[in-house]
Amino acid sequence: MYDVTEVRRDFPILSRQVNGKPLVYLDNGASAQKPQVVIDAITTAYAHEYANVHRGLHYLSNLATDKYESVRGKVARFLNAADENEIVLNSGTTEGINMIAYGWAMPRFEPGDEIILSVMEHHANIVPWHFLRERQGVVIKWVDCDMNGVLDPQRVIDAIGPRTRLIGITHMSNVLGTVVDVKTICQAARARGVAVMVDGSQAAVHMPVDVSDIGCDFYAVTGHKLYGPSGSGAIYVRQDRLAEMRPFMGGGDMIREVTKDTVTYNDPPMKFEAGTPGIVQTIGMGVALDYMTGLGLDNIAAHERGLADYATQQLSGLNWITVQGNAPGKGAIFSFTMQGAAHAHDISTILDKKGVAVRAGQHCAGPLMEHLGTPATCRASFGLYNTQAEVDALIEALELAHDLFG
Amino acid sequence: MYDVTEVRRDFPILSRQVNGKPLVYLDNGASAQKPQVVIDAITTAYAHEYANVHRGLHYLSNLATDKYESVRGKVARFLNAADENEIVLNSGTTEGINMIAYGWAMPRFEPGDEIILSVMEHHANIVPWHFLRERQGVVIKWVDCDMNGVLDPQRVIDAIGPRTRLIGITHMSNVLGTVVDVKTICQAARARGVAVMVDGSQAAVHMPVDVSDIGCDFYAVTGHKLYGPSGSGAIYVRQDRLAEMRPFMGGGDMIREVTKDTVTYNDPPMKFEAGTPGIVQTIGMGVALDYMTGLGLDNIAAHERGLADYATQQLSGLNWITVQGNAPGKGAIFSFTMQGAAHAHDISTILDKKGVAVRAGQHCAGPLMEHLGTPATCRASFGLYNTQAEVDALIEALELAHDLFG
Repeated sequence: MYDVTEVRRDFPILSRQVNGKPLVYLDNGASAQKPQVVIDAITTAYAHEYANVHRGLHYLSNLATDKYESVRGKVARFLNAADENEIVLNSGTTEGINMIAYGWAMPRFEPGDEIILSVMEHHANIVPWHFLRERQGVVIKWVDCDMNGVLDPQRVIDAIGPRTRLIGITHMSNVLGTVVDVKTICQAARARGVAVMVDGSQAAVHMPVDVSDIGCDFYAVTGHKLYGPSGSGAIYVRQDRLAEMRPFMGGGDMIREVTKDTVTYNDPPMKFEAGTPGIVQTIGMGVALDYMTGLGLDNIAAHERGLADYATQQLSGLNWITVQGNAPGKGAIFSFTMQGAAHAHDISTILDKKGVAVRAGQHCAGPLMEHLGTPATCRASFGLYNTQAEVDALIEALELAHDLFG
Repeated sequence: MYDVTEVRRDFPILSRQVNGKPLVYLDNGASAQKPQVVIDAITTAYAHEYANVHRGLHYLSNLATDKYESVRGKVARFLNAADENEIVLNSGTTEGINMIAYGWAMPRFEPGDEIILSVMEHHANIVPWHFLRERQGVVIKWVDCDMNGVLDPQRVIDAIGPRTRLIGITHMSNVLGTVVDVKTICQAARARGVAVMVDGSQAAVHMPVDVSDIGCDFYAVTGHKLYGPSGSGAIYVRQDRLAEMRPFMGGGDMIREVTKDTVTYNDPPMKFEAGTPGIVQTIGMGVALDYMTGLGLDNIAAHERGLADYATQQLSGLNWITVQGNAPGKGAIFSFTMQGAAHAHDISTILDKKGVAVRAGQHCAGPLMEHLGTPATCRASFGLYNTQAEVDALIEALELAHDLFG
């Protein structure tokens, strides 16, 4: 039984006040708060167990290496990858997708080759592909969602043509909460020899993910949204794609031998992990994944489902609020605008005065905002520690904003 | 007056034991330990002040943004950059140098263009240039140091030819401790229109650095060696070079606008900082720099000079030990081999049994090891908290190793 009151006690920041009000943290889509076990793991790592990894033979280096390397298996199990060597540890989704763009796509895509993107993509899954468009003539083809935020997988599949090399698709929209049927897309793509890069930054936070079942080529997650430290993350790269990739960043650890005239690279996944990694934040990410699986990914999803249903219902009672996106089964992410003149930034400022932290703006999703025809929205995004009382606090703060701007 | 006993109390890990012996941590060249103020700053950030930066308008996001952005100025002052906007924050030297390789060199170097590297470079300042050799026909020209580890700047200058575009040079060898006269090199290079990338990973730890005085184009530092968190770092890029660079990684924060067909980029330095950055580790790096400047960079350098002199003297008393590198003014980094059959790895394992942590191997410096004609060395590298008594502990442990292998 999921006891959210008890869960909240695990997160020290949730007991603080903001502007004289209890913090109601609804900016989880941007980054999640950290449980004490993660903070403690960081403290322990630095205060008692710190050294650089991989290259040392002394006690602390071996200890840090064991702790760091154990995270690879944790991520593999979290995503149900077939082999932990399909997990490349990194600093987050942005680095992960750039690694695919530079290491896999750049050397093999020809001018005129096509990348299909959904209009719901985050800039992290757009800009690296714009680089290929700008620099080597790759063509980006866009697939729209409907105005409810529903993305029909068949529209993505229908967009596949003879020049299509890659589909970049979010598993859960960071703006609308829409869950995309990536499995159906991957099945069709694979049958046509097209790779699929799934951005799991949001989905992995809110629902169990099974990359083997999905059948994707690449799946990116980011630690700081998964209740782990900033600057942590990982990307799943299926074995055959891993073998096709050239290195992204060059430096220590990713090489086997460097001479004046030659360089030979380490085997994957080390080949893609250059230099001293984010040792302690990666260890912290492993603890965060343990924390989530300890609570139970299904339990977390069920708790958030309850929150989403309640928030949907409460927000629908405010007839001056427009919620963007109501795809069936959407995650607990609510973008909304207030009818009338109030700008999203002003609304969020009022909410902040009541201790309610939401985000306002484009949410790193320019094409989607254009598609929705709105320059900016507010976004309340929920996490495993949020409560129905916090939905009520959001509603109350929105009513205040409406009174002020109405 | 520099009180090393007091300084040591700031570092909790230094009071621990390893293998039943007090830890003698002489692996600072790989990564340094962290003072309590840095650990506390991390804890505070996560437990009380955490949110994503730049994109939020709520209290915690503004607070985190202010703390994060203040680090840019701290790094600028630490390196004496003319403008804090010449500082790009990143995850460490490897990312920094790869950003220069991908963002500045790759789009402008033609086949046959030359990069000059010293034989003392770390793989982080070699492999990104090997990429350019492999991928676009750039030629790497090597400049050797002499067998004492001295690098005559004139040899670097003499290597400049009409096709030379870049010099990649360490400010302090991570193997030999040699300090390179990068200022003389930069002056000559600039007069010939050649850019200089200085790897300051080691130098910035051991001596005050003044990039304005040096006159370099690029200067990379890494936070985890500067007593800061893993996964933190920065690179100084002189304004004119910053203007020449195209983006490296694509994602959030580094853009101004993204549409389906176009992307416009943010101004530097943001243009080069894609996605959610290493928020907390960067804040921690700022605290580490404050800690160092609080102790006094000259005081630290003087303390380490004393250690280096003492270690030089004590090691010279062991006539079965060969120290690689004795350049005048070298930093407190000692690579050595033991005459006879003992492999560096075996020696370091014995040292570890006595609590003495040193590194053994190639030290990510393949070409230098080849130049020195040795497959591996042990390396004892000192930091601001090391003591003469720890030099004695090293010597004693070496004597044990000599007894065992002698």
